Amino acid sequence: REAWDMSDLNGPYDDFLTRSREIHRLAAALGLLSWDQETYLPPAGVPARAGHRATLAAIIHDKTIDPAFGNLIEELVGQPQEAWAAANLREAKRLRDRSVKLPRQLVTDLAEAGSYAQQAWVEAKQNDDWALFEPHLARLVELRRQEAEAVGYEGEAYNALLDEYEPGARVEELEPIFTALRERLVPLLDRIQGAAQPPDRALWQQDFDPGLQDLLGRQILADIGFDFAAGRLDLSAHPFTQGMSPQDVRITTRYDESDLGVGLFANLHEGGHALYEMGLPLAHEATPVGQAISLGIHESQSRLWENSVGRSRAFMNYCLPILRELFPTQMAAASVDDLYRAANVVEPAPIRIEADEVTYNLHIILRLEVERALLRNDIEVQAVPALWREKAREYLGLEVSNDREGALQDIHWAFGCFGYFPTYTLGNLYAAQFYACATRELPGLEQQFAKGEFAPLLGWLREKVHARGSLLPAGELCREVTGAALSIEPYLDYLTTKFGEIYGFDPSA
Amino acid sequence: REAWDMSDLNGPYDDFLTRSREIHRLAAALGLLSWDQETYLPPAGVPARAGHRATLAAIIHDKTIDPAFGNLIEELVGQPQEAWAAANLREAKRLRDRSVKLPRQLVTDLAEAGSYAQQAWVEAKQNDDWALFEPHLARLVELRRQEAEAVGYEGEAYNALLDEYEPGARVEELEPIFTALRERLVPLLDRIQGAAQPPDRALWQQDFDPGLQDLLGRQILADIGFDFAAGRLDLSAHPFTQGMSPQDVRITTRYDESDLGVGLFANLHEGGHALYEMGLPLAHEATPVGQAISLGIHESQSRLWENSVGRSRAFMNYCLPILRELFPTQMAAASVDDLYRAANVVEPAPIRIEADEVTYNLHIILRLEVERALLRNDIEVQAVPALWREKAREYLGLEVSNDREGALQDIHWAFGCFGYFPTYTLGNLYAAQFYACATRELPGLEQQFAKGEFAPLLGWLREKVHARGSLLPAGELCREVTGAALSIEPYLDYLTTKFGEIYGFDPSA
Repeated sequence: REAWDMSDLNGPYDDFLTRSREIHRLAAALGLLSWDQETYLPPAGVPARAGHRATLAAIIHDKTIDPAFGNLIEELVGQPQEAWAAANLREAKRLRDRSVKLPRQLVTDLAEAGSYAQQAWVEAKQNDDWALFEPHLARLVELRRQEAEAVGYEGEAYNALLDEYEPGARVEELEPIFTALRERLVPLLDRIQGAAQPPDRALWQQDFDPGLQDLLGRQILADIGFDFAAGRLDLSAHPFTQGMSPQDVRITTRYDESDLGVGLFANLHEGGHALYEMGLPLAHEATPVGQAISLGIHESQSRLWENSVGRSRAFMNYCLPILRELFPTQMAAASVDDLYRAANVVEPAPIRIEADEVTYNLHIILRLEVERALLRNDIEVQAVPALWREKAREYLGLEVSNDREGALQDIHWAFGCFGYFPTYTLGNLYAAQFYACATRELPGLEQQFAKGEFAPLLGWLREKVHARGSLLPAGELCREVTGAALSIEPYLDYLTTKFGEIYGFDPSA
Repeated sequence: REAWDMSDLNGPYDDFLTRSREIHRLAAALGLLSWDQETYLPPAGVPARAGHRATLAAIIHDKTIDPAFGNLIEELVGQPQEAWAAANLREAKRLRDRSVKLPRQLVTDLAEAGSYAQQAWVEAKQNDDWALFEPHLARLVELRRQEAEAVGYEGEAYNALLDEYEPGARVEELEPIFTALRERLVPLLDRIQGAAQPPDRALWQQDFDPGLQDLLGRQILADIGFDFAAGRLDLSAHPFTQGMSPQDVRITTRYDESDLGVGLFANLHEGGHALYEMGLPLAHEATPVGQAISLGIHESQSRLWENSVGRSRAFMNYCLPILRELFPTQMAAASVDDLYRAANVVEPAPIRIEADEVTYNLHIILRLEVERALLRNDIEVQAVPALWREKAREYLGLEVSNDREGALQDIHWAFGCFGYFPTYTLGNLYAAQFYACATRELPGLEQQFAKGEFAPLLGWLREKVHARGSLLPAGELCREVTGAALSIEPYLDYLTTKFGEIYGFDPSA
């Protein structure tokens, strides 16, 4: 029992906490089962694991919809509460209201279907065989459509799913933001592609031993503040972060022997997610308010460390001596500027997670449109690869030569996560707005990075974002931290200034 | 839904299966949490993990004691059932009857205390600091005493705990068997220690790279039939086996750079456990009858592969070429006979899991007496190290110089497992009786081992033991497989013949 709830011992708020903790602890156990499935589960173990996950998901559902829990929440919501308790109740009510509308069978079906779909996705991707994944995707789309109908929505069904990842978000409201963004990014991309002396990434694309890449990753993660006593780094087909508690946060990565950037930026990205999870308020562990507020905010933390920090010139200053030690031959002639320019090549390419900061959101817009079409029943799953290619041509000017680099590249749909991708673009926007604010409030930030000092930035993020858990909804958090509502301007300012300098054009022209 | 239960669709037996599967799937999830805690959990994650485990344990308890489940079992037990269904009900009833008597708080307290005790044990062992472990042990003894009082027992409290691992066993009945065994082992040990030309283990005690030891372990495990698509091998402080389903069975090991035997025989021991788990009837997965019948039978499988197979001359025939390839320098001059003799040195030594086949049971008798004294309240936990030393002197003629090699060497008490150790000796006895029977029924077994052919023996064990799950209680299984009740004679015959030959005395004299 924590100090902060002693005052209410055995009162209804204490009962509420006990029930909340039970639910969240079961969810953490389910999180471990998911992490294990992507890292260490023997392949033949998938059917049993599907059963284990479905069972846990069903019990979480039962505990969440328990009328006694609902009555407690209603009773407490009607009473004056201090801010943390009020936020706890707000979040619990939101999550419960959604669960109550879901049939139990749908919950277990989704958990089970997701387990099989993940295995099928891994095989399909390995063999570049869309047909292996197709029936699983069809099943997940169907189940998630049922979910949308069950929980209800305004506008279109997609909103019901989006709301799970970004509470309160609506695709009709995102659409004009995303369109405005695309309309500003395309001319920026044109200017970049027309530049006379583009940087090239040859420096990153040499031969790099994965074992040494792993050492590099661990050192950088430790330096930015990842606590290896409270977390792990493992390998998986698709990098991800799983937090079981602020003291058990696990990230995964993958290394490409012919491209140092793949693993390095994956580590920084997942490291950013992990710093958020590690910084969540421990006193509120296993209660709703102790969790991350939204995936958009989560992605803001990963993209901030990956890009605003990791692709900065100052970071290369810090990084070069480490790289020289680990890879003396490959880095023999490299300067900080070489590294910086090589890490910031803008060039449409098929893989999202390796995309540069300018084209990245075009990948997201593509996915949003494909999954929205699926949920609207505008297309069948069979049509996804072709639609993907068409949109890649239209938005990125790319010919996608196979589905591994097309519609099979991401794991998200294999988890049944439709409506998740837009949170990446929201994350980019939040990241730029937070980072602009941090640089105003913390002068000399980049000089600190150059010396390997990341604690001041992490401390600021901890205080402003991480330690607040779900105290404030995402939009309010953004206004309180940055003094303004979310806007595309800080992001476009950041991109224009940065790439104007790198590619040699006048950003203000 | 499996074919075998279609006939009973939606009848009470189907309901019983649904409830049983839910309980067993939760137990499997709890199993993964335990495995993870010993292998990959970051150290700061222990408190959260304790909460996760306690929550799962409590829900398993709730589901088990649900009166509706009890009513179903009672209804079905009163009806004629085919053998598998009858066994399923018998086991479900046995497990439920025990759970019903346990207070929920005790269940969560035990799960939580065990999580903390394991971490404390690892630290205590590393630092050879008994005091670090002492309060945790005291708490676990106290909780387990409460458990014994709650579930009830005939004779002494120890029986209530023993029964959890070896259903139906009673310490008063084991005592004469163990005493008879000790009285026969001591003169055998005397003859061995008086032999003129004892073997020595210098061959095993050279410098062996752990990475190469791991390759060796994986090859041997694959050769004896361990399916790496349905299992894993990892490292941990104390080797153990955890089966989440027959298709997800995980073993752990540890390697000693200066002793090849430590890892090799740990791999064979855990491999034997794993073969049992992998051979359990998949059609009955996640139901009581699909589980191992008792720990004594479980240990019979590990000890059989470790000793009857792994320490045989024929096994060394198979093993020598592999060893020569991996360790050409160390094995340059080794013959099959050298290996065999070095693997069968009989010599009292402090560590149980490295003990030879003759002294092994003296280690068990020591532990049984210490834990029985604890449960009887005859001694306090503070007195354990001294009592351990006294008994090591008496039974093994050893001066135990530190607690790492004494009362801190085993993890079992840190799990709260009192009453577990006697199952190792039962396992040795069952193993010898099963193996004697197998050699009668499968002529040429050792010639097969020499060629690396272990499938005939594994097939026999699968059919006779593994595939039967919990169909028959341990004693009945033994009678049905071997035609006789459990006896110490096959084990003593085996030891006397084997060590007479190695140490050069006439076993019949």
